[in-house]
Order: sequence, then structure tokens, then C-alpha cells
Amino acid sequence: MRVVVALGGNALLRRGQALNAENQRNNIRVAARHLAAAHQQHELVIAHGNGPQVGLLALMDAAYTAVDPYPLDVLGAETVGMIGYIIEQELGNLVPFEDHIVTVLTQILVDPDDIAFKNPSKPVGPIYDREQAEILQLEKGWVMAPDGEHYRRVVPSPEPQWIIEMNVIRMLVDSGITVICAGGGGIPVAYDEQDKLFGVEAVIDKDLASGLLATGLDADMFVMLTDVSHVYTGYGTSEQRAIRAAHPDALQELDFASGSMGPKVLGACKYVRETGNSSAIGQLSDLLSIIDGRAGTLISNKIEGIHYV
Amino acid sequence: MRVVVALGGNALLRRGQALNAENQRNNIRVAARHLAAAHQQHELVIAHGNGPQVGLLALMDAAYTAVDPYPLDVLGAETVGMIGYIIEQELGNLVPFEDHIVTVLTQILVDPDDIAFKNPSKPVGPIYDREQAEILQLEKGWVMAPDGEHYRRVVPSPEPQWIIEMNVIRMLVDSGITVICAGGGGIPVAYDEQDKLFGVEAVIDKDLASGLLATGLDADMFVMLTDVSHVYTGYGTSEQRAIRAAHPDALQELDFASGSMGPKVLGACKYVRETGNSSAIGQLSDLLSIIDGRAGTLISNKIEGIHYV
Repeated sequence: MRVVVALGGNALLRRGQALNAENQRNNIRVAARHLAAAHQQHELVIAHGNGPQVGLLALMDAAYTAVDPYPLDVLGAETVGMIGYIIEQELGNLVPFEDHIVTVLTQILVDPDDIAFKNPSKPVGPIYDREQAEILQLEKGWVMAPDGEHYRRVVPSPEPQWIIEMNVIRMLVDSGITVICAGGGGIPVAYDEQDKLFGVEAVIDKDLASGLLATGLDADMFVMLTDVSHVYTGYGTSEQRAIRAAHPDALQELDFASGSMGPKVLGACKYVRETGNSSAIGQLSDLLSIIDGRAGTLISNKIEGIHYV
Repeated sequence: MRVVVALGGNALLRRGQALNAENQRNNIRVAARHLAAAHQQHELVIAHGNGPQVGLLALMDAAYTAVDPYPLDVLGAETVGMIGYIIEQELGNLVPFEDHIVTVLTQILVDPDDIAFKNPSKPVGPIYDREQAEILQLEKGWVMAPDGEHYRRVVPSPEPQWIIEMNVIRMLVDSGITVICAGGGGIPVAYDEQDKLFGVEAVIDKDLASGLLATGLDADMFVMLTDVSHVYTGYGTSEQRAIRAAHPDALQELDFASGSMGPKVLGACKYVRETGNSSAIGQLSDLLSIIDGRAGTLISNKIEGIHYV
């Protein structure tokens, strides 16, 4: 089976862990073991998040004041190099020598009129106090939003429309090469009035971007890996119930957290409706069982209603 | 003709220019115009340096003290995302819509016993005055070396042995896709005793890495672009003479600066000897004329001795 696997930023760097190279490499090494096991049986295409990493690079960037801050599209491209390199190397160390793995920089088109540009909602980068936030808002035109007692910059998270490198990625995948792409949700770009691409100050949700990739590649399955075993109803409450399988219509009647499970459910349902194929959400350590339909939450047109574990 | 073009870090960011995103994009936009003109007539493969950029990321990294410094292999991978993205986007805006361009992360094998690890020589990052250089040497353990009247950080620059992604790059190039790769001389990696790859704290010379790429791709020509029009003898003196064409044996009898023209001459001569094809060194704005043999310094087996302009 051709399977697009999206690794959550939190599967690569656990909440609360120091954002250093050693932790990232150790976590990716664990992820690579599960990916390598799945690679033995399936044709994998690997996408990944970059939430913690793009925040880190924004912090480093802000700490070095001798140059103007770099825009988000460039910082996102840097995380693609950082994370893609480590995934490629660690996975490469676990697969047969003759198997090829390649990391491809991925630009993803967004609509400059996307409503998300009027309502920046995705927090990125460091926290500031009120005074710093007001100065940044004035000087750089950034939108700042409260984050607990502090303020953070918030950026638009527009919907991904098209993958610029789609034909090349498809050619590589069709040739049996394991491709790492759409890193961090892809680098957000848009066409100007002269049909020239330019970088956009935004962060695309990596689950929606990976779903677009899976659709474009006619993948048999689209798997999103995170740090919980299933999609839950009432998550974190005494009533929480793990979902074993669901029809997209039934799943989308439920409410999920907009910053975490919401985009995954949306990405899964969109993919299932557009392709008729299955999607699944679950934890990294269950990858092979998730692909085989024995673990995680399966989302499929062939299922009626909701089935709990 | 299949031409591997190596863009010097100084062709992308001129000496003394602020290391910001705007300057990089403006310079790359100029470079892209020349690349696009050459692309109309030839099959280009594009490599690039990262000296200024990897130095910048190391400075940003050092300025943010809340996490341990990232190793040079990871910082190098980040510059590949940063620079590759801007080249791909700017060049993509100048070529027909149906032409495909892709940026591929490139790991390049080095020998952990390379003598270069005992003798750091490759300058990275900005220039410093003497006092700043001494402080950095003390505080960060960096090795600093003179650069004209200033000082720069120097790191080991081992010889590139093999390009890990060579087969994939060749497949892409054979399919007519314009590939941006071996960025920053590639990410330096080595095999450990269990035949597993690991990242190495070094910066591979991008001219030697690009030459290895050109050899592996059976390129018809290997062009190195920098900020001077020719290879010169007595460069910067009243006796300086521009070289029009040379046989590799004759060229290598002359002395060139180890940090700038030296590796280019070495890379060119190595390529010419191994492949029997031609190499050339010159300035960005002459690219098309250089490929046509009407500008720059041509290095070829078919030339006797040295010919001056």
C-alpha cells in the first residue's frame, strides 16, 4: 500500500522537552524504527510538523538583533532542512542500503484572499510582555494576541490549495523512492498579479497539507501520528471514550480542540471524502498496526456511524 | 549541454552586506535572471555555497542561550532549506510554468580521519575586528583566522568522498528536472563502525562538492561562479593578470588563496582530469558567455599551458 504518514511536531519533540539537537535526534531515532518497520511492507511518503522548531528558530532569530528578523516562510524552509535531514539520516540507517530516501523542499500554494489572513490565529515564536508586544505591533505590523499573562505573535493559517512540487514528488514516489516532503505544512506561497510566487507570512497546518499530498499521490491511506492512541470524545474528562472507527459524517458532528485534534479530524474527513480511501489517526508506536487497521482511529466511508473501543 | 553551476556564497550575499532576508532575496533574484537565461539553452544543475549563511545561523544559535548550540551539520541543513527555497522560488518565477525545479537535501560522505579535522581552515560567518575575534575565540572556543584586515571563524573542511543521494539526483536530472542540490557543499556525514551515518562538525568546500556532483552526473561542464571575472595571477597586486584559459597541470603550478580561489582551481582541475570535460570559473553576470567559452577562465585538457586575457 502507498501510505502518507504525517508525523506530529509533538511526536518529534515532546511537550516540555528542551528544544536541543540531541532530544530531536533521539526522538526521531525512535520514530525511524517505527517508520522502518512500516517501510518493509508499504510504500511510505513522510510528512512532518515543525511547530516547536519554527518557534525555536524564531527565538534564535529574535535573540540575534544585528540583522532584521527573517520572515516565516524562510524560517519554515530552514526547519525543513533541519528536521528532514535528521529523519532521512536516521531512517536511512535502518533500511537496506539500496533503498533510496530523499528530502524535497515543498512550497504550498495558499489563497491570498483566504479568510485566515483577516484572522491570524496560529501562535508562533517567543512570548513578550505587553510593552514589547505593543512596540512590535507598531514597528513590524505583527498581530499580537494574549497568551496567559504574556503576548505572542499570531499568524494566519490559510488552507493549502496546491503543492508546487507535486509532479516531481509523484515521479519520485512512483519510482519507489521514499520521499520526505511537505515538512512543517509546506512553505506557504502565493501568486502575485504577475503570476509570480512570493513567500507568505503564515504557517499552514501540516495535517491539511499532508492530506492534500495524500490526495495528490493517490495514496491508499493517510495516517496522522500524534502522541495519543486514538481520537477521543470528551478528551481529558472522566467521560473520555476512544473512537475505534468512524464515518467522516459522524465524526465531524463531534467537537474537537481547534489547535490539536480538530485539524487532524478535518484533514482525515476531507481526504476520505475526496478519495474514497481510508485515513487513520493514532500514536507513533502503533504505526504498523494502524496501517493494518488494528490500532488507532480509522476514518472510512465504509463504516457506519461511530464505533468506540 | 548538462552544466553543473556552483554559486558562490559571495555571489549570493556580497561581502559587507547585512545578512538579512531582503538582501539575500535581492541578490538571488539577480542570480536567477542569469540562471534562467542559461536554463533556456542548457540542462542546469545548481549547487551553492553557504559560508555567510551558516555563520549567521551559528550566531543566532549562540545568541539564544536557553538551548545547547546546534551542531554544524544541522545548521548546514537549515541553510539548505533557507537558500534552496529562495533560489527555487526566484528561478521558478522566470522559467516556463511546465519546467520543474526541485531542491534536494544532500548528505555528502567525508572521511572521519581526514587531515582537515586537525587543521580548521574554512571561513564561515561575518568578519570581525581583532578584539571581537579574540573574545569569540575565548568564549566559544572557535578557531579564528585573519581575513584581509579582519578576522573570521574557521572550521574543518574535509574532502567530499561520495554523495549519498547521488542516484536520486541523477534520476531527477535525467528526467529533465532542474535540481538544486549539494547546497553549502552538502551536509557532511560519515559512517561509524556499524556502517551507520552520523553528522560531522565541518563545512565541505562547495566547489569540491559541486565538482564531485558534476563528475557523478557526467556533466558536460562544471562552472563555478564568484564575484570576479577570471582566475588571476598576482590578484590584488599591480601585476595581476586575468587567465583566459589553462591546462590543469599549468594552472596548478600557480599559487591561489586557500580560502577563495584555491579550492575553485582545485575543484576545476580535479573535474577536468577525472572526466576529460571542461570546467570554468567566472562571474555570475557572464554565466551564459562562460558556458559558451567566451568569458571567464576555461580549464581544459585540450589547452596547452596558460593563456592570459
